[in-house]
Amino acid sequence: MRIDELPTPALVVDREVLERNLATMARAWPGRRLRPHVKAHKTSGLARLQADRGHRGFTCATVREVEVMAAAGLGEDLLLANEVLDMRRLGAVVESGARVTVAVDSDAVLAAAVAGGVREVLVDVNVGLPRCGCDPADAGRLADAARAAGLEVRGVMGYEGHLMMVADPVERAERTAGAMALLQKAHADVGGDVVSGGGTGTWRANTVVTELQAGSYALMDSAYAAQDDVPFGQALTVLATVVSVNRSQGYAVADAGLKAFGMDHGNPTLPGAAVWYCSDEHTVFSAKDGAALPAVGDRVRLVPAHVDPTCALHERMWVVDGDDVVDSWPVDMRGW
Amino acid sequence: MRIDELPTPALVVDREVLERNLATMARAWPGRRLRPHVKAHKTSGLARLQADRGHRGFTCATVREVEVMAAAGLGEDLLLANEVLDMRRLGAVVESGARVTVAVDSDAVLAAAVAGGVREVLVDVNVGLPRCGCDPADAGRLADAARAAGLEVRGVMGYEGHLMMVADPVERAERTAGAMALLQKAHADVGGDVVSGGGTGTWRANTVVTELQAGSYALMDSAYAAQDDVPFGQALTVLATVVSVNRSQGYAVADAGLKAFGMDHGNPTLPGAAVWYCSDEHTVFSAKDGAALPAVGDRVRLVPAHVDPTCALHERMWVVDGDDVVDSWPVDMRGW
Repeated sequence: MRIDELPTPALVVDREVLERNLATMARAWPGRRLRPHVKAHKTSGLARLQADRGHRGFTCATVREVEVMAAAGLGEDLLLANEVLDMRRLGAVVESGARVTVAVDSDAVLAAAVAGGVREVLVDVNVGLPRCGCDPADAGRLADAARAAGLEVRGVMGYEGHLMMVADPVERAERTAGAMALLQKAHADVGGDVVSGGGTGTWRANTVVTELQAGSYALMDSAYAAQDDVPFGQALTVLATVVSVNRSQGYAVADAGLKAFGMDHGNPTLPGAAVWYCSDEHTVFSAKDGAALPAVGDRVRLVPAHVDPTCALHERMWVVDGDDVVDSWPVDMRGW
Repeated sequence: MRIDELPTPALVVDREVLERNLATMARAWPGRRLRPHVKAHKTSGLARLQADRGHRGFTCATVREVEVMAAAGLGEDLLLANEVLDMRRLGAVVESGARVTVAVDSDAVLAAAVAGGVREVLVDVNVGLPRCGCDPADAGRLADAARAAGLEVRGVMGYEGHLMMVADPVERAERTAGAMALLQKAHADVGGDVVSGGGTGTWRANTVVTELQAGSYALMDSAYAAQDDVPFGQALTVLATVVSVNRSQGYAVADAGLKAFGMDHGNPTLPGAAVWYCSDEHTVFSAKDGAALPAVGDRVRLVPAHVDPTCALHERMWVVDGDDVVDSWPVDMRGW
């Protein structure tokens, strides 16, 4: 199939750019040193490419992601890097033979792990992001409680999410070192082999974790691409058809809108165009930099500002090599 | 089932508020005077309630919405109020026995209707919103071209979407009258029985259209609720579980985030709380107005800022009466 035959809007992945991103990250964080985060793409077909590169452990954000990865035969070492209060479905995944480790940051979540039949945990430590994670000073106590309850404590995790978008690489590195010092201190109290954390924004800055939880690097978005020291290419675009053109007012309308893009980081972008706004099923844009307005029926490829919630809106990802559609994967980890 | 047994995040509809919204709108715009827009909820189960109130014609924004509505037996009079370049799937819906009318604003879209096997159209007129719609002065010519091509021209549509959020009701009414004057002028050139337009924001201001395309009124969101003269109640919330609480820093974390909320109108809100931010699977908030922070395991009900893209992120809608879950509907019109 040719790309022009795809129904729009369509989530399109450039195979060459994807392969290059995977190769670049695998050189810096080889094998088990990288624990790719599947929340970024929610697609087991793409996770399989990451496993083929040697990354056999994965990070998940939802119970559904754990279930689908295990069912896809990618359950060798799944970390649910998130707090969950009802772990019965995770216990069933463990029973099926997959390895599941969960984050715990409170006695309530620890009790849920025991009740749900999950046997391995990481103590989730707050390293400065105002979200989940226990006080670093409480990590040792929580590890002791987990072991007393019969759980295996594999180590710690701490996500410096508040530092991913720090623009200056030097400042980002310094603040990441500070955050990771908190994690190291907690690790000394907790024990275990695993120190898990980091992301695409700190792939260079983080020199402490034993495994990096990066996800966005594979497909990328315009928010991460704005960082100087993040060399991953834009593999993901949303293909749209121009359905209306207003030449007197100088704008065109493409058939991909709020239901095709994660909007929390702002509007999608389009090379050679100024995006005016998005509505439910439309993006309105004018031409700039001397570009011409397209005609009705033309196709455009918009760049999402935030990859994760964008993927969650689509049923399928189409893999292209130039103008040829060479593969497609269901976005099979959507929902909860 | 009780609401506390629902897995979270969950899209929850308050039946009593929904029924009241439907009744209020049906009094002002009875029967065929209202053409409910299904893009707001994407749920044929909810559309059936609207049909039961006497609204037998529906507005759609995507081909998928038309297909699902027809398959659900709600295809008596479906308007695709959007421009589409490949109408073959719509032609198949017509063949199946449903009535499908499409918006056309250019010769290219008109040709697509003919090629795809669609037989009825409305001329889509630009009434000030910079999006689709032909120049009002071109409407008559387009109608003539459509009739010459063998199409039935039922009338005009014009959506004053740029006026839905005008805060002052008097200004909104005045500007709506101006926009509708453009539509009336085009209608005089086009002919036909139908003058279609309007939405929840102009349900009172629009005194011109023969049918109102309102959708959000059924479930509502915090953006529309901010308007003084929009009396519809908040029927839709997203139920979430508190998974982490940081008492020293004074915040709590609920398990619904960017993948559970349309974010283009901003963060969701929570009564008695200040929402700090959302990340992929979390909303972080502190208590205000003397409210206490919740405990881990507590449930909260967040109010989406924009209903349409919020519904598009969920697989199912749960209908509740107090604490009882009394029904559930698949959100079956997602995707394209």
